[in-house]
Amino acid sequence: MTMTTGGHLNLVDLGALGALVEKIRQRPSAAQTTWSAEVRWTGAFRSEAAVRRFAPIASDEPRGMGGTDSAPNPVEQLLAALGNCLAVGYAINASAAGITIRALRIDLDGDLDLHALLGLADGHAGFSAIRVAVHLDTDADEDAVAELHATVAATSPVGQTLSKAIPLEISPA
Amino acid sequence: MTMTTGGHLNLVDLGALGALVEKIRQRPSAAQTTWSAEVRWTGAFRSEAAVRRFAPIASDEPRGMGGTDSAPNPVEQLLAALGNCLAVGYAINASAAGITIRALRIDLDGDLDLHALLGLADGHAGFSAIRVAVHLDTDADEDAVAELHATVAATSPVGQTLSKAIPLEISPA
Repeated sequence: MTMTTGGHLNLVDLGALGALVEKIRQRPSAAQTTWSAEVRWTGAFRSEAAVRRFAPIASDEPRGMGGTDSAPNPVEQLLAALGNCLAVGYAINASAAGITIRALRIDLDGDLDLHALLGLADGHAGFSAIRVAVHLDTDADEDAVAELHATVAATSPVGQTLSKAIPLEISPA
Repeated sequence: MTMTTGGHLNLVDLGALGALVEKIRQRPSAAQTTWSAEVRWTGAFRSEAAVRRFAPIASDEPRGMGGTDSAPNPVEQLLAALGNCLAVGYAINASAAGITIRALRIDLDGDLDLHALLGLADGHAGFSAIRVAVHLDTDADEDAVAELHATVAATSPVGQTLSKAIPLEISPA
């Protein structure tokens, strides 16, 4: 990825991205990042996730799940995070490849069996499968678009976190 | 899980949850659910994820990542979704076990190497590890609390989606 020439494409600041790339080339340890969130339960199935200085991300369950339906639920938030991550991936990689994105919409669906969550059966409690339909409007040539799709899928941080088994250490504190 | 007696614990509507459990016992296919989100890219690294009728979940990257820092980024949203999911898990399972939660805070951190995202090296683009510290304030006895922690970790939909490799089908549409 070389973007040190600056300028903008797809509103992406190529100079800023190029500076990040150059910083990591000079000092590879700069690529090691840690991200955080802090969640507070507020009663029933409601909670709020604080990230840095931003307004917290509210969470609840639909009434059919026993909640009060005041916000998206956590598995919907997971799909949202995946779609938002893929959008960044398209913006980065299209801009690096000189491809103009006219519009981009990403539809996500995930299938979940409630048996394990509710203690009604053993088995996988998470999504069994996630489907993502990418509506990309661009006039780039077919090969470049195919390469863009492949690169984004292979390098999406959230996508790759879901595609692989990640060590999750949950500890009472 | 038996909660057909109704009433509330931890503000959880045990009657509503019991009705869901009973519905699935009668008709197991009712446990098969599908959840959705729809993401629209709005320029640079900004996008919005729409879930049902709720205000969209905004996404951006920090300035150091080349973004305009207007919202949590997707990997922070992923940690938020995990924490919010664990909060639901504690609320469900504590309530089913007759445990009163006085307070619950969940701190989440995840480590990510930017090399793959930026095309600077092959390798895993996602979180290499996620650490979760659960601050649970309750006067339940030690064994019951230990069982609660174990049950929540084993049955969290978002937690189990991250802990396992999930089939992710990303298709141009």
